[in-house]
Amino acid sequence: MDWTAEITAAAARLQGHIVRTPLLDSWTLADIPLTLKLEQMQHTGSFKARGAFNNLLSMDVPKAGVVAASGGNHGAAVAYAARQLGHRATIFVPEMAGPAKIALIERAGADLHVVPGVYANALEQAQAFEARTGAMQIHAYDAPATVAGQGTCFAEWDAQGLVADTVLIAVGGGGLLSGALAWWGDKRRVIAVEPETSCALHAAQQAGAPTDVDVSGVAANALGARRIGQIAFDLASNTPSVLVTDDAITDAQRRLWQDHRQLVEPAGAAALAALTSGAYRPEPGERVAVLVCGGNIAPDPLG
Amino acid sequence: MDWTAEITAAAARLQGHIVRTPLLDSWTLADIPLTLKLEQMQHTGSFKARGAFNNLLSMDVPKAGVVAASGGNHGAAVAYAARQLGHRATIFVPEMAGPAKIALIERAGADLHVVPGVYANALEQAQAFEARTGAMQIHAYDAPATVAGQGTCFAEWDAQGLVADTVLIAVGGGGLLSGALAWWGDKRRVIAVEPETSCALHAAQQAGAPTDVDVSGVAANALGARRIGQIAFDLASNTPSVLVTDDAITDAQRRLWQDHRQLVEPAGAAALAALTSGAYRPEPGERVAVLVCGGNIAPDPLG
Repeated sequence: MDWTAEITAAAARLQGHIVRTPLLDSWTLADIPLTLKLEQMQHTGSFKARGAFNNLLSMDVPKAGVVAASGGNHGAAVAYAARQLGHRATIFVPEMAGPAKIALIERAGADLHVVPGVYANALEQAQAFEARTGAMQIHAYDAPATVAGQGTCFAEWDAQGLVADTVLIAVGGGGLLSGALAWWGDKRRVIAVEPETSCALHAAQQAGAPTDVDVSGVAANALGARRIGQIAFDLASNTPSVLVTDDAITDAQRRLWQDHRQLVEPAGAAALAALTSGAYRPEPGERVAVLVCGGNIAPDPLG
Repeated sequence: MDWTAEITAAAARLQGHIVRTPLLDSWTLADIPLTLKLEQMQHTGSFKARGAFNNLLSMDVPKAGVVAASGGNHGAAVAYAARQLGHRATIFVPEMAGPAKIALIERAGADLHVVPGVYANALEQAQAFEARTGAMQIHAYDAPATVAGQGTCFAEWDAQGLVADTVLIAVGGGGLLSGALAWWGDKRRVIAVEPETSCALHAAQQAGAPTDVDVSGVAANALGARRIGQIAFDLASNTPSVLVTDDAITDAQRRLWQDHRQLVEPAGAAALAALTSGAYRPEPGERVAVLVCGGNIAPDPLG
C-alpha cells in the first residue's frame, strides 16, 4: 500500500473536519525537554476522530449507516463523525468502557448498545449487526482507512515543524502506531508503549504472530485490545516495544495536570510514562516527542 | 512609561523561565471560529507566573525574600518563581482562595498564611509583613514590573502569528488587561470581561475613578479584586467593558472541557463566556481571539 499517498489524501479529506491539535514544549515533565502533541483536544477527546472521518468521507455509506465496536473513544468518534456528516451510527461498547465514555457516545447521538465483557465481546456483536443490517463496519484500528486517518496526526505534526529523533506512542490495537509507522517509515524512531497489563503488540512480537492477551489495568478501556491488529503487527516488526506499569501511568497523568493543567485519561499519559518512569531511556542529546492521545477521563469532571 | 521597551525587556528576561503557551483554533466553541491562547498551561496554572518572574528577575531581592497577597494564582506563581530562583517567599491568601489553590501554594514551598475574609484582607497583612521584615512586596496587578511581565503573554502571541481584530480578556485587578493594553495600544481591539458579581473595572469606568466593589460568584477567588488597579484604570479608559453571569461562565467552562478537554477554572472561561453568552457580539467578519487565563479548578481533580 502507498501509505504516503493514502495519508496525504486523508489529510486533504479531513480538512475542516478535525482539530489541528496544538503542540507544547515542556522542560519540567521529564529530565529532558520534550515536545508533546496534545491530540486529546481533538473532537470527542482522542485521535480516533481522524480515522472515523476518513472512513466516512472515503466510502459510500449505506442507508443503514455505520456500526462500530469500541472501548469508548472510537465509538464516540464514529458517533460524532456520523452525526456531523448526516449518517446513522450504531455503537457497541463493552461495560468496561465506563459511564464517562458511555455518556460521551450518548451525547454524540448514536444508537448505543452496552455489551457485557471486554472489547472483543463488543466487536462480535458489532459484526453480527453488520451482517444483519448491511451497516458499514468501521474498525477501530485494523483497517487501511482507519490507519490512514490516524496517520494524518503525524503528517500534521511534521507540518507544524516537529523536531524529534524519537516519538513515543501508546499502543492498544495499534491504529495510531500504524499511522505513525505508515507516515514516517524509517524517517523517525517510533517507540511503542503499552501497559504491562494490556500488551498485545509486545506479546505478538514475542510470539512471532498476533496472539490473544488478557487485558486489565487503569488504561484498559482505551488500550485494552485483546489482539494487535495485523496491519500494526506487520508495520511494527522492527519497532521497539516498551512496557509501563499502572503506577507509572498514573504518575505521568498527575504530572501532566500539575505541570500544564492537561487532564488526560490514563491511556493519554501512557507514552509519557515510558519516559518519566525510565522504562525508555533516551541517549544523551536525543530529541524526544510524545503523543498525548486521549483525554476522556473517568469520572468526567464536568459531566 | 515606554511599555513596549518594558515588555520587550521582560520577554528577554523570562526566556527559559516560562512556558510558551500553545494556541488552539476552534470552530465549535462559539458561532464563529476563534483562536485561543491556552495560558492556563503556564507554570502554576495561570499567566501570573510571568509577572512573578519579571519582578524577581528585574529587582534586587532582599534577604527577607518576597511577600505577596493573592486570591491564589498570584501567590502560587510568586512561590514557584521564588523557589526556582532560590528566594524565600511568604504568601498571604484569603480563606476564599479555597483548598485547591492553598494546596498549590504549599506545594510550591512558600510560607503560607491563610487570612479570614477576601483579597483585600490578605493584602493588608502582606503590607504589614513587608513593613515588619523588609521583604519585597510583589503586587498581584498594580505594579509596572507585574504589568510588563503579563504583557509578555501578548508579545508572545503576536510572535506566534496571532490573527485577530479583537481579543477578549478576563479582568480581576487588571494586571493581565494592562499587559495587553500596554503591549498593543490601539493596534488591536481589547475587550475587558468581568463577572457581574466582581466588576471593579466596570464600576470604576462608571464612577470615573477606581472605587470599591463587593465581590462574589464562581470566579471570585481569581477575579474578585475589590478595586481595579490604577495602572489598569488609566490604560483602560477607552476599553469596552462587558459583564457576564456566573451561569455564562460555567457554561463556557463546560464547553472548553467538552469540545477540547481543557479543564479550566471559572476565571479561565470568563472571556469565552462573553462570546458564548452573547454579552459580546462580534460584527460579521470580525476575527476574535480569547485568552484562557487560568486552570486552577477546585476541587483539584488530581490533587
